[in-house]
Amino acid sequence: MTFEVISEHACFGGVQGYYKHSSTVIGLPMRFGVYRPPQAYGPAARPVPVLLYLAGLTCNEETFAIKAGAQRVAAELGLMLVTPDTSPRGTGVEGADAAWDFGTAAGFYLDATQAPWAHHWRMESYLTGELPAVLAQHFPVESRDGLHLGVFGHSMGGHGALTLALRHPGLFRSCSAFAPIAAPMQCPWGVKAFTGYLGEDRSAWAAHDATALVQAGHKAPPLLVDQGEADKFLAEQLHPHLFESACREAGQALTLRRHAGYDHGYFFISSFVEDHLRHHAKHLA
Amino acid sequence: MTFEVISEHACFGGVQGYYKHSSTVIGLPMRFGVYRPPQAYGPAARPVPVLLYLAGLTCNEETFAIKAGAQRVAAELGLMLVTPDTSPRGTGVEGADAAWDFGTAAGFYLDATQAPWAHHWRMESYLTGELPAVLAQHFPVESRDGLHLGVFGHSMGGHGALTLALRHPGLFRSCSAFAPIAAPMQCPWGVKAFTGYLGEDRSAWAAHDATALVQAGHKAPPLLVDQGEADKFLAEQLHPHLFESACREAGQALTLRRHAGYDHGYFFISSFVEDHLRHHAKHLA
Repeated sequence: MTFEVISEHACFGGVQGYYKHSSTVIGLPMRFGVYRPPQAYGPAARPVPVLLYLAGLTCNEETFAIKAGAQRVAAELGLMLVTPDTSPRGTGVEGADAAWDFGTAAGFYLDATQAPWAHHWRMESYLTGELPAVLAQHFPVESRDGLHLGVFGHSMGGHGALTLALRHPGLFRSCSAFAPIAAPMQCPWGVKAFTGYLGEDRSAWAAHDATALVQAGHKAPPLLVDQGEADKFLAEQLHPHLFESACREAGQALTLRRHAGYDHGYFFISSFVEDHLRHHAKHLA
Repeated sequence: MTFEVISEHACFGGVQGYYKHSSTVIGLPMRFGVYRPPQAYGPAARPVPVLLYLAGLTCNEETFAIKAGAQRVAAELGLMLVTPDTSPRGTGVEGADAAWDFGTAAGFYLDATQAPWAHHWRMESYLTGELPAVLAQHFPVESRDGLHLGVFGHSMGGHGALTLALRHPGLFRSCSAFAPIAAPMQCPWGVKAFTGYLGEDRSAWAAHDATALVQAGHKAPPLLVDQGEADKFLAEQLHPHLFESACREAGQALTLRRHAGYDHGYFFISSFVEDHLRHHAKHLA
């Protein structure tokens, strides 16, 4: 398995890097970003917990690293930040680049079951199996009693964080989300993605819907979710209130904060990212 | 004079906005970004000092706002951050887009005297006259005893910050720079820009070279300059040691910090931007 350093940049005493490896699971090269805090860099490097950030539609492995301003806090807390890409790239699949909300940069963090997507669109297996192994091989990842992994994300990546945490409770020790697609079976983005990747039969969808997973009894670590009230996607696509109700009924710990005036973008994320890192650090130590 | 809001985004309790106005000085529409801290926004808004950030080659009014992570600190300190564009746009001048280090996005923050640039490339007059007036008209800018203006910048914008502060000591009360082109007469970027904008006669160049200005007796407020030692442009283009010597000989206060491992990019800037904002806040209060 090849592993290549694309670039590395000193940042808050640590290093922000971009890397590329040949993914067996995806069947193509995949890129990801890693911020190594000062605690995990240099001759005195020690293993640190890893926080996986899943980005939203149209984004890639650079978006969060460039826009969120999270490295400062990660450097303070000794957290490694890992930013995978949002889908396979260069698949050659017809129609993969036809829309911004499906296909390329829109992997929805699940394993597709439908042709022509099922061959490369295997983001869940990639993120829960191959990528953690690659990280453990090339970076100082804390692994006492298993990897210390947390997951968070934004929008489509918030959906990814919540569903992966609910589906893999033994793997992720902490979870949070910014403006997640919280009930994808009930919104246009989710219906389009699930129809394409999982097929017309809705019975397969619930296993990848955070609200339905909570209703079915799945549990995640205590959740922190931030939502802007001026988010133009809030009413039609995100539905945090449905997730909130499901968590309340199921006894799933959830702190849902609604912020007046904030929209769906990275200025919103950067304003609250410090709270998220502190939330994860508490559970990942 | 038209003034248009392009977009506004809540950010750390204040608002990051992008704006456009018809510039009389430039003779074209110009864009700029403004971060209004919470102290200067909403019903209880009060006037606050303004810190002008000048970006480097290839950048625009969004670059710093997106990549530097400065809004958090500006919100704490009550500073307004203003990010102008790096040159006129859409000039129709032949050759303006031929190179990344001259013409469009490469205005070098001076008034060109040579055809065909002299008509639109008037960034110094724009930044020291028209833009502050536009800001004072549309935003709560502190103006006790004149505007409370500071200036900083990166690379070409570091050159801009140093030369504008040295040339307009009554206008700018504070100044700092990241990896500035500190002796442009002695580097390829500067020679190319000065030849194109100011002509072959080198006697006109010294008035826009920070090192030459200090040698000629110009004074600026106490300066903070950060420089990465892994900056690939350091040896050929930046020459901070020449500026350092000139300041020492002239008695110009300068804190020049050299940082092992840091390169020329925004991960470097974001790592030290808090120190810069605190430096400016001290002088702008």
